[in-house]
Amino acid sequence: MGLDFAGKEWATYIPIATSLGLGIYVVWQAMRPKIGLVNPDIEKDQDKVVNSMDVEDIGDKIAFCRCWRSKKFPLCDGSHVAHNKKTGDNVGPLCLKRKNSA
Amino acid sequence: MGLDFAGKEWATYIPIATSLGLGIYVVWQAMRPKIGLVNPDIEKDQDKVVNSMDVEDIGDKIAFCRCWRSKKFPLCDGSHVAHNKKTGDNVGPLCLKRKNSA
Ligand code: FES
Ligand code: FES
Repeated sequence: MGLDFAGKEWATYIPIATSLGLGIYVVWQAMRPKIGLVNPDIEKDQDKVVNSMDVEDIGDKIAFCRCWRSKKFPLCDGSHVAHNKKTGDNVGPLCLKRKNSA
Repeated sequence: MGLDFAGKEWATYIPIATSLGLGIYVVWQAMRPKIGLVNPDIEKDQDKVVNSMDVEDIGDKIAFCRCWRSKKFPLCDGSHVAHNKKTGDNVGPLCLKRKNSA
């Protein structure tokens, strides 16, 4: 045993070392939190999804989605709960309300 | 050459095959869009980041961040541009304005 750098024997360690290195990298990638697309699905044909609304059109209260998983986007439908649970994230909506309302 | 399954020779192909398999997996993982945390940094000590605001406190116009990269969160500071460029995403703010204002 032992590496014999004079002969060709040591070359057989290349794939073993590569396997080990790649294996460690794959496990590390799988374990660290993934950061990437905020929006996987909504209006992906657009360059940038900006929603606009008039303040006067807001009723007593409204919740806007910031997890990009809502079926009622741009409104929040509670889908952030499942997203947080699945990914370990901690996102939630932006809520607006009128003072005079309950 | 050729695999000799009768001898031990074939065992040397295991690390080579493993390297190849892992290498292909790593490249595939690197190329496909990553989906994971929407919010990598903001208030990670909280279970859920919900922001609330009174409609009366909104001025002529306001833009709320939905990319979770703004230094002025929950307001948009334009950081979505860099995020979109870096990740190939297409997110943007939620904008509110009063009708009577320009
Ligand atoms: S559904 Fe997206 S924040 Fe609630
Ligand atoms: S900075 Fe986040 S949407 Fe603009």
